[in-house]
Amino acid sequence: MAFARVLERHASAIERRLEALLAGNEDAPAALDAAMRYAALGGGKRIRPFLLIESAWLFGVAEDRALDAACALECVHCYSLAHDDLPAMDDDDMRRGRPTLHIAFGEATAILAGDALFTLAFEILSSPTSHEDADIRSELVFNLAKAAGWRGMALGQAIDLDAERQDLNADGVAGMQTLKTGALFRFACEAGAILGRASASDREKLRAYATALGQAFQLADDLLDAQGDAKAIGKAVAKDEGRGKATLVALLGVEGAKKRLAALVAEAENAVAPFGSKAATLIEAAHFIAERRT
Amino acid sequence: MAFARVLERHASAIERRLEALLAGNEDAPAALDAAMRYAALGGGKRIRPFLLIESAWLFGVAEDRALDAACALECVHCYSLAHDDLPAMDDDDMRRGRPTLHIAFGEATAILAGDALFTLAFEILSSPTSHEDADIRSELVFNLAKAAGWRGMALGQAIDLDAERQDLNADGVAGMQTLKTGALFRFACEAGAILGRASASDREKLRAYATALGQAFQLADDLLDAQGDAKAIGKAVAKDEGRGKATLVALLGVEGAKKRLAALVAEAENAVAPFGSKAATLIEAAHFIAERRT
Repeated sequence: MAFARVLERHASAIERRLEALLAGNEDAPAALDAAMRYAALGGGKRIRPFLLIESAWLFGVAEDRALDAACALECVHCYSLAHDDLPAMDDDDMRRGRPTLHIAFGEATAILAGDALFTLAFEILSSPTSHEDADIRSELVFNLAKAAGWRGMALGQAIDLDAERQDLNADGVAGMQTLKTGALFRFACEAGAILGRASASDREKLRAYATALGQAFQLADDLLDAQGDAKAIGKAVAKDEGRGKATLVALLGVEGAKKRLAALVAEAENAVAPFGSKAATLIEAAHFIAERRT
Repeated sequence: MAFARVLERHASAIERRLEALLAGNEDAPAALDAAMRYAALGGGKRIRPFLLIESAWLFGVAEDRALDAACALECVHCYSLAHDDLPAMDDDDMRRGRPTLHIAFGEATAILAGDALFTLAFEILSSPTSHEDADIRSELVFNLAKAAGWRGMALGQAIDLDAERQDLNADGVAGMQTLKTGALFRFACEAGAILGRASASDREKLRAYATALGQAFQLADDLLDAQGDAKAIGKAVAKDEGRGKATLVALLGVEGAKKRLAALVAEAENAVAPFGSKAATLIEAAHFIAERRT
C-alpha cells in the first residue's frame, strides 16, 4: 500500500531529525538524556508529525522546512505519553512493545524527562534555526501552548481522570477526547497551515479535518483496546473496561462505534475535498487511521 | 526597610495579574483550575518576577510592560515546585506554610496542574497581547525553554536527584545549583534585558549578577534549612541533612557558607555597579536575599 510507505518515509525522516535534536551531551547525567531518547526515539507511527508535514505541503512548504515543527510536536506527544503512563495517572507498564518510561528509568526520571521533552518542543519551535520568521515561530508556540494546556490536552486528561469517578455520556466522552487527543491533531494541521501562511478559510478546512480525524483515531484506539491483540499493539488491552474508563465503545457497542468511525472518516474526507488531488494523502491517512490493526 | 516595600508592591501586582491570567473557567473540571490557582497564587516572595521587572526597568521598560513575562516566569517557578515536591522527587509535604500541591489535590492532579502551569507560561510569552514585537516574544520563549530545559533547570534537578546516590564536591554542588536555581534567576534578568533591547555587554553584566544572586539565594536557603525555624519558613527544615542531600553548608560548614554568601553578594553588587544609581534596587535585592530569615 502506497500510503504505508509514505508514512514510513516521513517517520524515518522524523526519527533522524529527532536523533539529531536529542544528540547526547557528555556532561549531562546519563539518566536524563537516556530517558528522553528512550521516550522519543525508536517507535510510534509518527502520525501527528506526518499530518503537520502533509498539511504544510498543501501550501507548498517542503518537508525539510516543516520537519523541526513536526519534531517539536512529536516531543509533546511523547511527553504526554510519559506522564499519562505514570502510576499516579493511567499506570501503564507497556508501551510500543517496551516497558514504559517510568518502568525503565524510575518515576522521578520519567516525570523529569517528560518535562524536559516538553520544554525542548518550545525550544525547537522558537529557535531562529527552525524558521527565519519570528511571527511564524511565535504563532506556532502560541498555538502549541494552547493545544497542550489547561484548555486543551491537559484539560482532556483531567476530565479523563475524573471520568473514572463519574459517568460521562457519549457526548461527554467525545468532548473529552476532542481535547485529550484532538488538540494535538488540530495543532498538527494548524501548524502546517501557519507554516504555509494559509488563508483563514483553508485553516478552517484543516481544523475540521483534524477534529474528525482525532475522534476517528481515538475511536479506532478504543476498538483495538476492546478487541485487539496485546502483542501486536505493544501495550495491554481491555484495560479501559477493567478500570471502568469512559470509552465510546462501552457506550455505543462495537457495531455502533464502527458506524461512528465510518462517519468520522467521511467527515474528514469532506473537509479537505476542496483541496482536490493535493489532499489525496490526507484522505488516505483518515482511512489508514480507521482501519489500522496496531 | 524601603526594599521590602518595593518587593511587596511588585508581589501584589504580580498576584493580581496572575489572578487575572488564571481566572476560572466554569466548563473546566474544578480540580485542574483549582490546583493551578493553589500552586500559583497566595504565596511566595515573587523574587524571580521582581528581578525581571527591575532588570527591564534598568532599560526604561515600565512595570506593566514587563508584567506578563514576569508572570510567565513565576508560572514556571511554581510548576517546578509542584513537580519537585512530588513523592517520587523530593517528597515534601509542606510549602509556604500550606500542604504541598499533591497533598492537597492528589498526585495525578499535581503532575497535571504543574504541566498546565508550565504550558501557560509559554502561552503568555507568545501571546500578541503580551508584547507586540514577535522577535521579542520568540526570543523570550527561546530563552525560557533553554533555562527550564534539559541543559538548564531540569538538568539541575536530575543532578540533584542523582546526588543523593553519589557524592558531589563543593564545585559539583555549586554547578548543580547554577542549573537548578540559577537558570531561572538568569532568565529573569535576561528577559528584562530582552524586553529592554539591551546591548550584549549590558546583558552580560546582568547575567553575571543573576548567576551570583542565584548561588547566594540557594546558599541562604541551605543555611535556613540547616539553622532555620520551620514555622517561620513554612516548610520542613533539616531535611537536606536527613536525606543526605548535597548542600554547600554540609561541605563548607556554617561559617564557610556564610563567608561564601558574603562573597557572592559582593560579586552581584560589582556586576551591576556600572549601571550606577539605577541598580540600587538590584543591589538591595542581593542583600535582602542573603540576609532573609524566612
